[in-house]
Amino acid sequence: MTVPATTSAGLIAVDWGTSSLRVYRLDAAGQVLDQRSTSIGLLACQGRFEAVLAEQIAGWNEPLIIMAGMIGSRNGWFEVPYVACPAGPREIGAGLREVLADILPGRRIVIAPGLCDRSGGRAPEVMRGEETQILGLFDLLALDHGAGPHTICLPGTHSKWVTVEAGRITSLRTAMTGEVYAVLRQHSILRAGMAEPVSPKPDATLGTMPGTTPDEASTSDDRAAFELGLTSSREPGGLLNHLFSVRSRGLFGELSPTEAAPYLSGLLIGHELHGLLGEVWAGDVHAHDGQAVHLIGNAGLTARYHQALAWWGVATRSHDEALVTRGLFMLAATLA
Amino acid sequence: MTVPATTSAGLIAVDWGTSSLRVYRLDAAGQVLDQRSTSIGLLACQGRFEAVLAEQIAGWNEPLIIMAGMIGSRNGWFEVPYVACPAGPREIGAGLREVLADILPGRRIVIAPGLCDRSGGRAPEVMRGEETQILGLFDLLALDHGAGPHTICLPGTHSKWVTVEAGRITSLRTAMTGEVYAVLRQHSILRAGMAEPVSPKPDATLGTMPGTTPDEASTSDDRAAFELGLTSSREPGGLLNHLFSVRSRGLFGELSPTEAAPYLSGLLIGHELHGLLGEVWAGDVHAHDGQAVHLIGNAGLTARYHQALAWWGVATRSHDEALVTRGLFMLAATLA
Repeated sequence: MTVPATTSAGLIAVDWGTSSLRVYRLDAAGQVLDQRSTSIGLLACQGRFEAVLAEQIAGWNEPLIIMAGMIGSRNGWFEVPYVACPAGPREIGAGLREVLADILPGRRIVIAPGLCDRSGGRAPEVMRGEETQILGLFDLLALDHGAGPHTICLPGTHSKWVTVEAGRITSLRTAMTGEVYAVLRQHSILRAGMAEPVSPKPDATLGTMPGTTPDEASTSDDRAAFELGLTSSREPGGLLNHLFSVRSRGLFGELSPTEAAPYLSGLLIGHELHGLLGEVWAGDVHAHDGQAVHLIGNAGLTARYHQALAWWGVATRSHDEALVTRGLFMLAATLA
Repeated sequence: MTVPATTSAGLIAVDWGTSSLRVYRLDAAGQVLDQRSTSIGLLACQGRFEAVLAEQIAGWNEPLIIMAGMIGSRNGWFEVPYVACPAGPREIGAGLREVLADILPGRRIVIAPGLCDRSGGRAPEVMRGEETQILGLFDLLALDHGAGPHTICLPGTHSKWVTVEAGRITSLRTAMTGEVYAVLRQHSILRAGMAEPVSPKPDATLGTMPGTTPDEASTSDDRAAFELGLTSSREPGGLLNHLFSVRSRGLFGELSPTEAAPYLSGLLIGHELHGLLGEVWAGDVHAHDGQAVHLIGNAGLTARYHQALAWWGVATRSHDEALVTRGLFMLAATLA
């Protein structure tokens, strides 16, 4: 049974991913009144999504609950079909799907769709969750930067590169940079030449990279090793060849064990930028002097991407991940 | 104490790598009289190399024992310094180092050096063991194919691409193709969309890839998926982007769970070839029509590389891994 509910009574915004669950209580103007988070991601609560959600939002009585992220995937609560690019708030809003409330009677619970890009006869591209953060940036983009096209990068386990033009997301590309970094660091021979991380273990799920924590980003040696990785990524040979240089430079004393990880990070991010910026901007980034890449992510990781893009001569502008509440509020406003 | 010993009394050739130990008894003409192998690699016998060797060659009394492979590395029995390219049998022979026999008195035990290529101000390149297999191919190359340059590829965990000219190894490049395949297949999100291997588990040490076992190479669907991977590797976006297509094509039913692994293999080998063939041949492989790439490796893996190179219009010629005994015999002949 559908309970009519709009933003006029405030709402609960939910960002539910593979490894974390964040809930926000918003007022009728979309301002965050309260927030909670937990590491109970999808994988930890198969079959009892509603019970977990009810516990997280205990005491919050807004009638509308709107969710984004992998919760709408095949392994989530309910699979919400992807909406195709180009898509803006209206198209994405039209793709919202309602799930029946059982433990939370009297609530209206909707899940946002992901986005897919199947243009050009190439492999399909998909995202779930990031599109909602990007929607949260729409007002700002339009106000400060005109109709676009704008280039937005969300670095992470699976970095997303998104183009926004005239209020719609027009294209989407993914790079598995964070996950490749994590599996190589933890499971390949390259681990042998690397100092153990000083802080949280690299985690394929979280996509921790050097720079994610202040500890790992703090030294000038780290920055120099990261930049050597960027430079080396432009040598001939390709990524599979360059990866071996993490080991061979270590053998010849060109990289210390603490420098090996930021060097690997630089190699990978260098390849990500070359592969995707070249495409986005037809290989001529200098034609875009003055147009910044908008970075959405945690401070440490966006700092690395800022350094990499600066090395390339590209300006950046960083935005907080909390954009997701603005995006969800915008989607909620499309509900009848 | 050095025991004079040359090939005139036959010799024992040893190929000792990270995960296997192969011993061969050769006569005075270099013919293999007997051979044994075990999976006791370096990692399994730290500090007791000579005892393990003595057990493996029990009953063989040839006075000269010559070894190649990671046994000469920092984590091996004795670290033998790398010899620099360009290097032929004479230069590599001059780099042989003797270890003192204790459990095997009266024997002369020598270890071959690895090779390094530090040309061009780029990251160093190294190999240990493969150079000896390549030496074993020298007579054949010179007889059948002239002075060169010849291109030799040894696919595997760390694929090696080697150029031989006028009887010397002149350059060397590595691609971590097999290891990247194994860690992604075992430890990344891509595993979720893949059927479990029908035969031995992918192993980062052995660099097992689809095609290594007849089971995995046998179907035409596999070959088609592998070729789709090769084709996709030439799309814009770069490897870190293409890897995500293993997942996204699975989501949209473009790849079945059994096709995902050969597709990944095709993507990776396609990137290896593009990165390294482009360099070896200055990007114009067609200028080398009629010049084959010489492949050294197991039958399943060289079959994959044959398919990939054929797709590129490049002919191949496959050679057996047993070349290592010829190479070690050639090196033994340089001993005083």
